[in-house]
Amino acid sequence: MNPHYYGLILAGGRGTRFWPRSRKRSAKQVLNVLGDRTLIQATVDRLSPVIPPERLWILTNEHLRDIIIKQLPEIPRKQILSEPEQRNTAPAIGLAAHILRSVDPEAVMGVFPSDHVVNKPGSYREVISAALHAAAERKLMVVGIQPRWPETGYGYIEFPSGTEPGVPAGPVAVKHFHEKPKLPTATEYVAAGNFYWNSGMFFWRADVLMNELRLHLPKTAAALETLPRFGARDFAAKLKHVFPQCDNISIDYAVLEKATEVSGIPAGDFGWNDVGSWNAVYELLPRDESGNVAGADAVCLEANNNFVDAGGKVVALLGVNDLIVVDTADALLVASRDKAQQVGEILKLLEKRNRHDLL
Amino acid sequence: MNPHYYGLILAGGRGTRFWPRSRKRSAKQVLNVLGDRTLIQATVDRLSPVIPPERLWILTNEHLRDIIIKQLPEIPRKQILSEPEQRNTAPAIGLAAHILRSVDPEAVMGVFPSDHVVNKPGSYREVISAALHAAAERKLMVVGIQPRWPETGYGYIEFPSGTEPGVPAGPVAVKHFHEKPKLPTATEYVAAGNFYWNSGMFFWRADVLMNELRLHLPKTAAALETLPRFGARDFAAKLKHVFPQCDNISIDYAVLEKATEVSGIPAGDFGWNDVGSWNAVYELLPRDESGNVAGADAVCLEANNNFVDAGGKVVALLGVNDLIVVDTADALLVASRDKAQQVGEILKLLEKRNRHDLL
Repeated sequence: MNPHYYGLILAGGRGTRFWPRSRKRSAKQVLNVLGDRTLIQATVDRLSPVIPPERLWILTNEHLRDIIIKQLPEIPRKQILSEPEQRNTAPAIGLAAHILRSVDPEAVMGVFPSDHVVNKPGSYREVISAALHAAAERKLMVVGIQPRWPETGYGYIEFPSGTEPGVPAGPVAVKHFHEKPKLPTATEYVAAGNFYWNSGMFFWRADVLMNELRLHLPKTAAALETLPRFGARDFAAKLKHVFPQCDNISIDYAVLEKATEVSGIPAGDFGWNDVGSWNAVYELLPRDESGNVAGADAVCLEANNNFVDAGGKVVALLGVNDLIVVDTADALLVASRDKAQQVGEILKLLEKRNRHDLL
Repeated sequence: MNPHYYGLILAGGRGTRFWPRSRKRSAKQVLNVLGDRTLIQATVDRLSPVIPPERLWILTNEHLRDIIIKQLPEIPRKQILSEPEQRNTAPAIGLAAHILRSVDPEAVMGVFPSDHVVNKPGSYREVISAALHAAAERKLMVVGIQPRWPETGYGYIEFPSGTEPGVPAGPVAVKHFHEKPKLPTATEYVAAGNFYWNSGMFFWRADVLMNELRLHLPKTAAALETLPRFGARDFAAKLKHVFPQCDNISIDYAVLEKATEVSGIPAGDFGWNDVGSWNAVYELLPRDESGNVAGADAVCLEANNNFVDAGGKVVALLGVNDLIVVDTADALLVASRDKAQQVGEILKLLEKRNRHDLL
């Protein structure tokens, strides 16, 4: 293991689509929707052989920091940071790069979402290692995933035509980044073969990223560089002052789409899923012979293809199909599976009604 | 008010179709599915102007007696009896007749279900009064209700053709009792005009009923007549011994279909509903503009014609239609409205799985 490899896990997301289980203080990344480990614990587990926990850093928010500290005792507590306020990915990654550069001038950092699923961690680590290796040689690296369907919810990375999936000998130049497409465009992308899902993982040397920020996002770079040394007494207070001055922009827009050269790994399938909704959870879990994911205690009569998450409560389904049923102590969701993406609209309504207790 | 009028409220039913709110210890009749009064409280309320609580008797089972005593403090506690074991209506009514006859040789008794709804209590009491009046003159009286649709879940009373609904000057002779019909037959009944829903209410003098029992159900009559005087020290012990010897048969089969003369009131609509399922509750309650009966706290998005009963919990419905959602602390039901009659099947399954905690 290269001792200069560091990981930044981004864990500031709200995950509103997992309501009523996701709340301000229990966002998707700290939920165990798929097994006994939470999504962020699973992220750390699968990274550990490449980047050990003592070199993992986490950026989250004040609502989630305590539970993340509890869930990840193997990560040094000082490396689990709260953003003073919610910004986009560019300031968060810039902040981490600034800190890591001061901790280790040779630092190579991988940036990882905290709430995705990977079912083939071996293949995943092969890709991560290759990306870190290229990043150590001053490349800006991304990871594309061979698309399995014309998904309209992801961005796409365009590689040169004829690019084959796999971990190549060297990094492959990225031709373009494409935003979430409409279905006809997504279908063309998949047919073309050289368009890959953007996994949301990035790899670069901390100093290389800071240089890019200075070029493309000078105000944010300058603000971050006024911060004292990490560990200094006034670091937190200064950060609170500095962070709001940073541009509220994603790293994709701020750097990747503007940099003169970005490279990537056109990865094959490593069982990646962004678990974007309760329906994704349904798709990922084993079903019974009626297509239900409901637990052994559930009673299903003339009921097919339903998803149930209800803690220990017995749920009886009678004559219903394609439902999502999620029960918690103070709120219950009953939704059609094909509306799973719209769960966030419920939260907007609850907010309007001042039901902050349920958000 | 005639001082010889007594009421027997039959409250031994399980009401499995209201699971998960109905349980062994909280059957339908003691639930407040339609308002702040429970069904049995509402029964007593509407009878009181005709038969005061001090002359009302209740037959229930050991699981429900305590809660009924609590819900009906106005009824003398000794008049709230438990059947030693579950039998059909003939032994229960026979027992009450035997007791009432000993309490008051002139007793005229009305027999009432405990779990029905009546929306026009004034019209209802007019019918009850007329039936009691005829019963006082030694008639066996029933009450038919003009059918509003060809219901296959009720028995029918056939009056002479040309019978008009209303409270007639005198009782009308019943031609036949008909069991729950298939739909084509029910449709013929409704078209014919002289077939009425059997309301399950009966009216007779206690001594007249005992005579009928002696004729048509001699074993049961003889067993009951070995009982000591009501109030005697050994009454309960003797009842425990005697009751299991009684025939397990309904009063309809045992007496009404065999008696030489039965009369009835062909009643018009007094807003009667037997509240046979959660769907009946849905039909009886006011709906919002999307056809939902869900309470003010519910969040309904693209959701129509659903019924929700969830205590104080916030329920969010997203893209679902025609559902019944009933939530309790330890069990949750999600059913299609058109399957509401089959909720009992869930209980059979739970029983098989030894989940007696949920029955």
